[in-house]
Amino acid sequence: MSKQIRLAIDAMGGDYAPLEIVRGGLLAARELNVKVFLVGKAAEIQAILDQEGSHPNIEIIDAPEDIPMEEKNPARAVRKYLNSSIVIANKLVSDGIADAVIAAGNTGAATAASLFGLKRIEGFERPCICTLIPTISGVMFLIDGGSNIEASAENIFQNALIGNILAKAYLKIPEPRIGLLNVGSEPGKGNELYKKTYELLEAHKGFNFIGNVEGKIIIDASCDVVVCDGFTGNIHLKSLEGGLKMMALAVQNEIKGGNPLALLGGFFLKISGVFDRIKAHFHPNSFGGALLGGLNHISIISHGSSNAEAIKNACKQAKLYAEIDVCNEVRKALLP
Amino acid sequence: MSKQIRLAIDAMGGDYAPLEIVRGGLLAARELNVKVFLVGKAAEIQAILDQEGSHPNIEIIDAPEDIPMEEKNPARAVRKYLNSSIVIANKLVSDGIADAVIAAGNTGAATAASLFGLKRIEGFERPCICTLIPTISGVMFLIDGGSNIEASAENIFQNALIGNILAKAYLKIPEPRIGLLNVGSEPGKGNELYKKTYELLEAHKGFNFIGNVEGKIIIDASCDVVVCDGFTGNIHLKSLEGGLKMMALAVQNEIKGGNPLALLGGFFLKISGVFDRIKAHFHPNSFGGALLGGLNHISIISHGSSNAEAIKNACKQAKLYAEIDVCNEVRKALLP
Repeated sequence: MSKQIRLAIDAMGGDYAPLEIVRGGLLAARELNVKVFLVGKAAEIQAILDQEGSHPNIEIIDAPEDIPMEEKNPARAVRKYLNSSIVIANKLVSDGIADAVIAAGNTGAATAASLFGLKRIEGFERPCICTLIPTISGVMFLIDGGSNIEASAENIFQNALIGNILAKAYLKIPEPRIGLLNVGSEPGKGNELYKKTYELLEAHKGFNFIGNVEGKIIIDASCDVVVCDGFTGNIHLKSLEGGLKMMALAVQNEIKGGNPLALLGGFFLKISGVFDRIKAHFHPNSFGGALLGGLNHISIISHGSSNAEAIKNACKQAKLYAEIDVCNEVRKALLP
Repeated sequence: MSKQIRLAIDAMGGDYAPLEIVRGGLLAARELNVKVFLVGKAAEIQAILDQEGSHPNIEIIDAPEDIPMEEKNPARAVRKYLNSSIVIANKLVSDGIADAVIAAGNTGAATAASLFGLKRIEGFERPCICTLIPTISGVMFLIDGGSNIEASAENIFQNALIGNILAKAYLKIPEPRIGLLNVGSEPGKGNELYKKTYELLEAHKGFNFIGNVEGKIIIDASCDVVVCDGFTGNIHLKSLEGGLKMMALAVQNEIKGGNPLALLGGFFLKISGVFDRIKAHFHPNSFGGALLGGLNHISIISHGSSNAEAIKNACKQAKLYAEIDVCNEVRKALLP
């Protein structure tokens, strides 16, 4: 039997913390056969466990300190508040007590705490957010989703190295198709940064580079990993989100618009579960979070609005990455 | 009575040329009280007019030459094939015979022909695509939609100058809200280019700069003009398109998925006209094209897939911009 994976969850981070985070940790302990450290104010966490019913795989780690709301500089905050839940959760990992950290609090603070606590892999220049995006038929990775907004071609190339490893593990495909996000699919498209990145990706023999892809690639899902700089990736993600939400809203508005046939149609769609299924497919809670790639250990950054289901799914990702020892795979991929 | 606006349409450009383009020109002549020059192979255009019934405001301008498919360099092509429809249509404008050119052919060729034929406004460094985007309740401008992919902060600032003028004319609002597309709404967000652009926009007193906006801004339509570089703008547009299409497709797939209640719901929505209304709201044909801003005369670049309705709507935009003498307004805005 393989070693049980141990996860450190920041129980105090997130819009619905600690209740939903603790519940998520419980779901993970019950369903995923993982050890779960719930890091935060011990009394508060214990009170929730008393109510929800605990699990033998759950352990509370006390972290009594708050990072004050007025602290605006995340990098300074995580150096100053060493007994905060986010810092201690990361420390459990760097001390070898846990295999991965999961945090749903302020993204800036969560990122800073992992950079500070887990450190970059030597040779991996700029950590990247490895975001999962729903496509029409499945999921794909977008790397970088917004961590490194002044990226070089080498940085984007390294995003592809990580993406190749993650897609193999998560999507279970032997040769993930890697595309470069660009303004057109033909070679030679884009600005100087993207032209240079194209050349680096094309010259590499270690993965399956399929060329430039456009922002609408999700429709046909003809790619498994899309790489870009963090500025462009974040614009892409939020524009995609805008398009998805706007179309959903347009359908909703039309149904509620007063036409009785439209209302009736909407009623039948609702009771048939169409809206629930679509929501489940596209909601970020379905993935639960994104790996902060390029560090010495696994750190999953979850959405601030994460519920218990999201935290459980973040734990699932963390477990999967821990099982393949993703950080070591990245280290190997960086070797010349 | 104000002077009748005269439009030069490249009748040979576009996936459905010349039939749909000629039909679009006819619609414009009939409905918009404009003079329409249909530029292209005279016999082909005449044959369509014979069938469709012409209009006194229509005039054919013969342009017998084809740009061969194998000609890959648009800038060279428009200098070489001087009797092609796209070159002659632009020449009608630069010669003062028409007030605006409309072209739905290859975007690269259409752009090159207008750059070559109409020339940049002095002091306006890099022409920009002024794209109209549907929001949930109306429309907004995105500038630049993909013309200038290596933009400077000054270039993006000039995009805002044009946007302010266009939004006043098209949206009929006295003080359009101008936002900078960025990775977060707080000041200080973004890469160096965007931080510098923010400063330029904020320092200018001639328009209503509302700060950074995110890619999902279209949902609440809290902005009238979004400015950015052409690379980022193109990524935004295509990602938005991807999101809109994917949600529409997801609803469609669910309805056709075999659940009888879902099928019934879809049937009622269909007969109530919901899908048709949504399609009409979001389809690019509703706007018909985008101004190539920063030139001495008006050039509207239409989608390759334009139908007659799209061409008519492009003519409507062209007429509106000609009536306010948009190029002269830009010239005035550039004065110190």
